[in-house]
Amino acid sequence: MKAFVYLGPAKKAVEERPKPDITAPTDAIVKITKTTICGTDLHILKGDVPTCQPGRILGHEGVGIIDKVGSAVTAFKAGDRVLISCISACGKCEYCRRLMYSHCTTGGWILGNTIDGTQAEFVRIPYADNSLYPIPEGADEEALVMLSDILPTGFECGVLNGKVQPGTTVAIVGSGPIGLAALLTAQFYSPAEVIMIDLDDNRLETARRFGATAVVNSTDGNAVATIMKMTGKRGVDTAIEAVGIPATFELCQKIIAPGGTIANIGVHGKKVDLHLENLWDRNITITTRLVDTVSTPMLLNSLRSNKIDPKLLITHRFKLDRILDAYDTFGRAADTRALKVIIEA
Amino acid sequence: MKAFVYLGPAKKAVEERPKPDITAPTDAIVKITKTTICGTDLHILKGDVPTCQPGRILGHEGVGIIDKVGSAVTAFKAGDRVLISCISACGKCEYCRRLMYSHCTTGGWILGNTIDGTQAEFVRIPYADNSLYPIPEGADEEALVMLSDILPTGFECGVLNGKVQPGTTVAIVGSGPIGLAALLTAQFYSPAEVIMIDLDDNRLETARRFGATAVVNSTDGNAVATIMKMTGKRGVDTAIEAVGIPATFELCQKIIAPGGTIANIGVHGKKVDLHLENLWDRNITITTRLVDTVSTPMLLNSLRSNKIDPKLLITHRFKLDRILDAYDTFGRAADTRALKVIIEA
Amino acid sequence: MKAFVYLGPAKKAVEERPKPDITAPTDAIVKITKTTICGTDLHILKGDVPTCQPGRILGHEGVGIIDKVGSAVTAFKAGDRVLISCISACGKCEYCRRLMYSHCTTGGWILGNTIDGTQAEFVRIPYADNSLYPIPEGADEEALVMLSDILPTGFECGVLNGKVQPGTTVAIVGSGPIGLAALLTAQFYSPAEVIMIDLDDNRLETARRFGATAVVNSTDGNAVATIMKMTGKRGVDTAIEAVGIPATFELCQKIIAPGGTIANIGVHGKKVDLHLENLWDRNITITTRLVDTVSTPMLLNSLRSNKIDPKLLITHRFKLDRILDAYDTFGRAADTRALKVIIEA
Amino acid sequence: MKAFVYLGPAKKAVEERPKPDITAPTDAIVKITKTTICGTDLHILKGDVPTCQPGRILGHEGVGIIDKVGSAVTAFKAGDRVLISCISACGKCEYCRRLMYSHCTTGGWILGNTIDGTQAEFVRIPYADNSLYPIPEGADEEALVMLSDILPTGFECGVLNGKVQPGTTVAIVGSGPIGLAALLTAQFYSPAEVIMIDLDDNRLETARRFGATAVVNSTDGNAVATIMKMTGKRGVDTAIEAVGIPATFELCQKIIAPGGTIANIGVHGKKVDLHLENLWDRNITITTRLVDTVSTPMLLNSLRSNKIDPKLLITHRFKLDRILDAYDTFGRAADTRALKVIIEA
Repeated sequence: MKAFVYLGPAKKAVEERPKPDITAPTDAIVKITKTTICGTDLHILKGDVPTCQPGRILGHEGVGIIDKVGSAVTAFKAGDRVLISCISACGKCEYCRRLMYSHCTTGGWILGNTIDGTQAEFVRIPYADNSLYPIPEGADEEALVMLSDILPTGFECGVLNGKVQPGTTVAIVGSGPIGLAALLTAQFYSPAEVIMIDLDDNRLETARRFGATAVVNSTDGNAVATIMKMTGKRGVDTAIEAVGIPATFELCQKIIAPGGTIANIGVHGKKVDLHLENLWDRNITITTRLVDTVSTPMLLNSLRSNKIDPKLLITHRFKLDRILDAYDTFGRAADTRALKVIIEA
Repeated sequence: MKAFVYLGPAKKAVEERPKPDITAPTDAIVKITKTTICGTDLHILKGDVPTCQPGRILGHEGVGIIDKVGSAVTAFKAGDRVLISCISACGKCEYCRRLMYSHCTTGGWILGNTIDGTQAEFVRIPYADNSLYPIPEGADEEALVMLSDILPTGFECGVLNGKVQPGTTVAIVGSGPIGLAALLTAQFYSPAEVIMIDLDDNRLETARRFGATAVVNSTDGNAVATIMKMTGKRGVDTAIEAVGIPATFELCQKIIAPGGTIANIGVHGKKVDLHLENLWDRNITITTRLVDTVSTPMLLNSLRSNKIDPKLLITHRFKLDRILDAYDTFGRAADTRALKVIIEA
Repeated sequence: MKAFVYLGPAKKAVEERPKPDITAPTDAIVKITKTTICGTDLHILKGDVPTCQPGRILGHEGVGIIDKVGSAVTAFKAGDRVLISCISACGKCEYCRRLMYSHCTTGGWILGNTIDGTQAEFVRIPYADNSLYPIPEGADEEALVMLSDILPTGFECGVLNGKVQPGTTVAIVGSGPIGLAALLTAQFYSPAEVIMIDLDDNRLETARRFGATAVVNSTDGNAVATIMKMTGKRGVDTAIEAVGIPATFELCQKIIAPGGTIANIGVHGKKVDLHLENLWDRNITITTRLVDTVSTPMLLNSLRSNKIDPKLLITHRFKLDRILDAYDTFGRAADTRALKVIIEA
Repeated sequence: MKAFVYLGPAKKAVEERPKPDITAPTDAIVKITKTTICGTDLHILKGDVPTCQPGRILGHEGVGIIDKVGSAVTAFKAGDRVLISCISACGKCEYCRRLMYSHCTTGGWILGNTIDGTQAEFVRIPYADNSLYPIPEGADEEALVMLSDILPTGFECGVLNGKVQPGTTVAIVGSGPIGLAALLTAQFYSPAEVIMIDLDDNRLETARRFGATAVVNSTDGNAVATIMKMTGKRGVDTAIEAVGIPATFELCQKIIAPGGTIANIGVHGKKVDLHLENLWDRNITITTRLVDTVSTPMLLNSLRSNKIDPKLLITHRFKLDRILDAYDTFGRAADTRALKVIIEA
């Protein structure tokens, strides 16, 4: 089968690989119909993710059709259409029982990381009963690809952890795909204001279209003053960090209201300053989280009832054999205005 | 009346001052019977608390007897015995309505800070109905002094924010008065283990006596390894920072389990490093808080039903005219083994 | 001044009464500009509310202008435009400190019940700082009248107690004003489905217009079967009882899914059957609540940011001297299709 | 093998039965070392549990040794000592993913009900990885038998659902084994008062020994008045119903404070009266629950750290071949003062 393979820092190729097979009774083999590329895949290609070794088929998102299942799989059979979760969950370890699937002792984020992933014609999914979801009749498969990772990530790490509630004021720092996913899902809770902050006016314009009530271009260095003015000097109830660098985490600390929550989504490569000398008495909360995908059933319900339109995030479409072009387009997002690219297998 | 007055960095005196009077209909004047000294008072004396200006009578803890009340006070009358909260709460601003009394827009921590405090024969208490508590018949007044600040601080900032629960493992970094207050109140929730960490064996011995299930002297630099071993490499569910320096906050980050909470109580004078490069995907929570004293009614119930023994914290007693000795004893705690000192007015 | 007075069962009149005056330092006198009639007022007129004695001026909703304030009122001054809460809260008793204003030991629902109310030219508001809200510049006063009682009641007793969440299925039994207020505010949480149940097709048509995803006319006795079919035999996650009779509470018990919540809003005059023989092992929750109006600040935020349109509830308008007509119109709602009637003073 | 078999209403016998075998890859066969009898077993013997048909081996509690495991079982191997949960959980259905194992679509309470149970030499445990727990080295197996059902039931259905918290007042109606289990586990949260109510002075004396702060014999019909007096007319914050008849549920309604919670544990055979005419405006919560056994890991931690002594509940011991005597002793508990009886296989 065709597969997109990481070959070491800055090296990648579409290669021919053997079709995967069942290795445990809880496995399923899924024929991929659609997949996509995540910012994390770009990190891997730079060599920033040491758990992912050269030779690995990348990809942890997608939808497909069950090809075959192991003897202990009861929820699926060959021919079923399924959504693949980016997180594999055994359903029985200490962390799975606490609904922290991200920290499953034998699963978590392994697809396209420590085992072969979804950017291929077929993929082996461990713990299939807990890591796949049936696709409802008539559902739009492109929309569903957004439920593998980006929507639950924005929702769980940003919106739920950030305690977005009706009537509150939210700032989202970073208007890339993940910040926009937080923006879309924040609206489940009808906050009074969602302020989007970025350096790129195009992205901010997109944010407006996705429901931001205000946007701030932070290029001029006045973002803090602007936001404090917008909020009557109070600051925001929730600040969602969706970039992953010290400067944006710093900004969150400067705009958070007493009693507020800073919810980190960004993948950070270095330490940040935490200004406890200012914040120790401000009754704030800071959270970090790798997505658990516990909200997938709820997101499926919301999609079914048209409470969210994930296709807004899709900007480009490619065939699997053109996946190098897809990576190029996604990698130059500032130029191409790419958000999520769909890859059809 | 006699009063202990801050006169500028490293300057202090017992002075004769006029007895305070009602200035607003919601005020009460309280004749102090017992008060105490807080670590924050030492910070003020060093000049570290800019809101507190020379000339200020210090003190934000104590019990006493109502001397007179303003026309809008309905819950108290002259002669009533009362517990004074370290936090003054108007009961009607945005923050008071959210039970964040610490951020009351016209109150909060003002006693012995921006208005004259309790280390005197009399004190004016603003918003008396919301900032004083009736003392039950027969209650021990020394025990009650511990409910003005130290017990609600340990409980709210450490135990509640730290989500201590039955069966969990808790580490408390810092075995001074505030760490010990967290230790005493953590036991309301029957955690499986409470590990106390400090540099001083005497303090750790006290911690054992107060209910710690394990103690770690971190002088040798092996505290992290020791605690990870104790917890089967998991780390702790709750880490309570009760010191207020970068090194102890760093320790908390190294021992926190996935899904755990770091609850900061310490008063920090400078920024700390936050290792988001390690923690971004660990599903942890960090909290800060200035005590709100919302738990005072619950602590009074617990005291009444003998679920806690706050007198364990009291090591020394002085008369008000010997308060300089009391400060000396409290200030040299490592030598004197002082925890809390009672000052009788 | 002119006032609408309850004179005993089925007796009522517009009478001339003396203008009220300040009786406590925390009082305010408010000149009413707009008020409305509540279903509870009809109960009083029938003689069903024994706490309300003949001679009482009715009404517990409205907006107006501060005429004068007592010496302890700090948040308002003469001339300020204010929203009146149906619940008076002292802000300092045990219940107020737990945010259960409905059970304030000297307040709660007293307006137009145990003290004179808002269906008059002026009203005395006790505990003004905690029981009035400033009206933002440019706000629509008619919309605000809906925030005195009906919206917080639907929201707190129905939506919050019922734990409505994104992706869930909600049934609201009773499509009168209070059920519709629950419907409007349930949408803050983007439930997947809101099924509205009533005997009157006109009301159900209104429910559709207000956002119900499905409606069920229960006249034919098949409502349970219909709803179980709609929900794939699961039942609903939240059932909100907005009528107040045994039959509708019975219906809620029959359609509630395992793990679901029945949130009672209805004012019940007699006991109901609780089928613990069926429900003891179904992991359900049943709640009751008199509105606390703790959500008023959040509702004001939501109104300001156009997340809700309370004017949808207003069907008729009258001048105060025509209030008997207003009562007639509101009392014959099935014929007149009245929801809420605005009375201008 | 020997097994205790239900043969129809009032008919039972110890019979010879074939040893069970693996039927699904997720099964385990456990050799029972200790089991016990539950009140529910008595209900079955009376013919009150229609899901349990004649011919069924009873029992849903116990500890034992793994005899063999199916091919998909990864957490256990032959020879491991295990605790058996009364609830079988697939770990992957909608309800298991919400931690409502009691409503597992293919599991739940099936042991000794719809499939053969633990009162035998061997038992087949479906979904072994999610329904068994490893026994720590050196643990007391008798104590552990109390963790199969009675302790998690008292804790989850009574204490957790009842929101027992530090400083609160709790009433437990019914001082039988399940009420006592609630009493033991309520103390994890250090409530200020736990009042135990029963008709039998012996049981109340036991309750005192187990930590009740007050006991009330309700034989004289004055229980409500007594409890209201004890609580200064407030009533209790939590009322736990641990009997299962209308009279005791009625009592709970009469003693519950505004804002309080009635947590039902009792197995009810008929409907009860719910006095909504009194309770509709009292802001109370009523909960029902079949135990989910989600608290088992926490209870194991608490047992390991000696925070609870479950052996207090054990009053008698029998060999498996004397199980008819054990049933007789347990069935005549008023005479024999039996709480839990251990049966050694």
